[in-house]
Amino acid sequence: MISEKMKGHIEAGSAIRVMFEEGKRLAQIYGPENVYDFSLGNPNVKAPDKVKKTIMDILEKEESTVVHGYMNNSGYEDVRQRVADHLNDKYGTSLDQGNILMTVGAAGGLNVMFKTLLDPGDEVIVFAPYFGEYKNYVDNYDGVLVTVPPNPPTFLPDLEAFRSSITRKTKIVILNTPNNPTGVIYSEDTIKELTKILKEKEEELQRSIYIVSDEPYRELVYEHQHIPYITKYYHNAIVGYSYSKSLSLPGERIGYLVLPKELDSYEDIVKAANVANRILGFVNAPSLFQKVVAECLDEEVDVTYYKRNRDKIYQGLSDLGFECVKPQGAFYLFLKSPMEDEKEFCKLAKEHRILLVQGSSFGCPGYVRLAYCVSYETIIASLPQFEKLAKKVFHK
Amino acid sequence: MISEKMKGHIEAGSAIRVMFEEGKRLAQIYGPENVYDFSLGNPNVKAPDKVKKTIMDILEKEESTVVHGYMNNSGYEDVRQRVADHLNDKYGTSLDQGNILMTVGAAGGLNVMFKTLLDPGDEVIVFAPYFGEYKNYVDNYDGVLVTVPPNPPTFLPDLEAFRSSITRKTKIVILNTPNNPTGVIYSEDTIKELTKILKEKEEELQRSIYIVSDEPYRELVYEHQHIPYITKYYHNAIVGYSYSKSLSLPGERIGYLVLPKELDSYEDIVKAANVANRILGFVNAPSLFQKVVAECLDEEVDVTYYKRNRDKIYQGLSDLGFECVKPQGAFYLFLKSPMEDEKEFCKLAKEHRILLVQGSSFGCPGYVRLAYCVSYETIIASLPQFEKLAKKVFHK
Repeated sequence: MISEKMKGHIEAGSAIRVMFEEGKRLAQIYGPENVYDFSLGNPNVKAPDKVKKTIMDILEKEESTVVHGYMNNSGYEDVRQRVADHLNDKYGTSLDQGNILMTVGAAGGLNVMFKTLLDPGDEVIVFAPYFGEYKNYVDNYDGVLVTVPPNPPTFLPDLEAFRSSITRKTKIVILNTPNNPTGVIYSEDTIKELTKILKEKEEELQRSIYIVSDEPYRELVYEHQHIPYITKYYHNAIVGYSYSKSLSLPGERIGYLVLPKELDSYEDIVKAANVANRILGFVNAPSLFQKVVAECLDEEVDVTYYKRNRDKIYQGLSDLGFECVKPQGAFYLFLKSPMEDEKEFCKLAKEHRILLVQGSSFGCPGYVRLAYCVSYETIIASLPQFEKLAKKVFHK
Repeated sequence: MISEKMKGHIEAGSAIRVMFEEGKRLAQIYGPENVYDFSLGNPNVKAPDKVKKTIMDILEKEESTVVHGYMNNSGYEDVRQRVADHLNDKYGTSLDQGNILMTVGAAGGLNVMFKTLLDPGDEVIVFAPYFGEYKNYVDNYDGVLVTVPPNPPTFLPDLEAFRSSITRKTKIVILNTPNNPTGVIYSEDTIKELTKILKEKEEELQRSIYIVSDEPYRELVYEHQHIPYITKYYHNAIVGYSYSKSLSLPGERIGYLVLPKELDSYEDIVKAANVANRILGFVNAPSLFQKVVAECLDEEVDVTYYKRNRDKIYQGLSDLGFECVKPQGAFYLFLKSPMEDEKEFCKLAKEHRILLVQGSSFGCPGYVRLAYCVSYETIIASLPQFEKLAKKVFHK
């Protein structure tokens, strides 16, 4: 009796979530210290201490009915203004509270934008490999996901393939840099070329094409690399941000959308996004955590922890003969499967109690994703297991 | 460039939210003490003290990565088990954690169920007057809302009209008792008759018809009236609960779904609802507040405050000659408009700085809704304004 769409979804499942649940099951059998669960991007680094202190301060000082009450569906005005000011200071943008919509994480924000913009049959372009949920989010509104093929070994966007993927039905282009699952960051030159193509195509096709930039990993960067702020390069750019990774609050579901004044149909989009946030059932971003993030805008998690993990696992796996993309940001490592069918490789890894996610979940078969946001001890302990795995697959 | 559906939505707007924003605007002009804002169900009664204490305890005792981390998309297993145990104690149900799905409020829960169950064109029956958002939630999945006409002056369901509204396309029946906007509670006899009709129709049409019972007001009852627990009367019943009103936490977006084992296609529904919670972008109910509500299951807000409000406003308005439905629960009063077009009456009330919501937003023109979850002082201060209004409309 469930809907046809959901029948397809429960058959397909989420390889990430299946592995996450499998990790919990194996941990009960073998003990958590003997399971090397690289399945889910669930941060092992704790939230900054100021988060806890801020929650306590707010509960002491503010009225319960305000802290836990309803507000405008787009969020508290003062919170939105502080987010805008912060972005202006940091990136030289000219935003105010009217350009910020507080959301139930970036996942909530992306759904709000897709609901706002997509008519059935509209096309949404994404660069493979990509976070598999995009496909589901687009399908929620009967949009069509159009994939630009992966471009190994750099995994930077193939811009000519991108150009030819744009049609009269293209409505949205999803960007995600630092990227999940590769950890690759797009340089300013790449962004300039990519947006140049979009401007030409907007002109040629006489239609608005929006970039929706999914940026949960913006702050997780390892070599102080500059990540261009997309709204400064393109007029029709929307940013979806999340505090899930930057403040290690994934369970709290708190993020925001940036809707700059430069957007075509700006006023309609702002109104519609506010309504979409309400009618999709989010209603508003969780109230206490709106107030918390407004006080923690300059806080960050300990990125050096992830960098140490990255260095160790990248070096360790490379030394064993695995072919890896060196991550510049986020906390994922994308690994070429040494077996033709990467699902078989994931199975074999699981026999060694190493949990990986198949690249086909990211539109890129032949690879696997490893989320290294685990404890350093897990990284160290996993390496002998990877060595056993290497011996099997490389027949050493 | 926004979607066709959203064009309709921004034109229609939400009368409730428009009035709420209008109330804030008038408060800035006239001072909040001179605006009588009965527009939104935003509780004026504070959360129980234990909520604050519990938050502080959790932050002191538990690991940041657990409190704020990802968990199963359906929620923490221990939280779900505690909710199940609580319901079993209170209602004699036989639930366990597998039957509970923690949600982003009841709004999130309803969207999860509609996504799970509805194919385009499926019909969802609702009794007018009803919370206007149901129409939007059903439309999100291209379902069709079928309205059973209002049944004044009791506003109990017209069961014969209900019977004839059931077709081969009926998939869901929405119940909402205590009711928004009338405050009416369905008696056990009504529930028995209603479910008897459904069982007969299931048999006759050879199809499953699910009740989705929206229960944010379950605990707000004024004469210790018994509210039947629907899963004990009907095999295909799903409950959507929210702590927005019962613990005064509307901004925090925390609630749950009850999915009993007796449901037809139980296993598929549980799996699909878990996936729907994820792919709609909720991902999971906010993590800290899952833990908070699990510690506050026996807590309740001060219902006597709302009762005093109810008694005062009901008596005051009746004395002035207004025709009111006496609310038995929730915190809404449904008032017959003394002017033929209730929108004109809302306008006139607004000139007296009284903010009401038009009944047509609830599928019941000719009436207006008054949310009396305001301060007692607001109730008292509003009465002379209502008197002026009465003089105008009754030409006294």
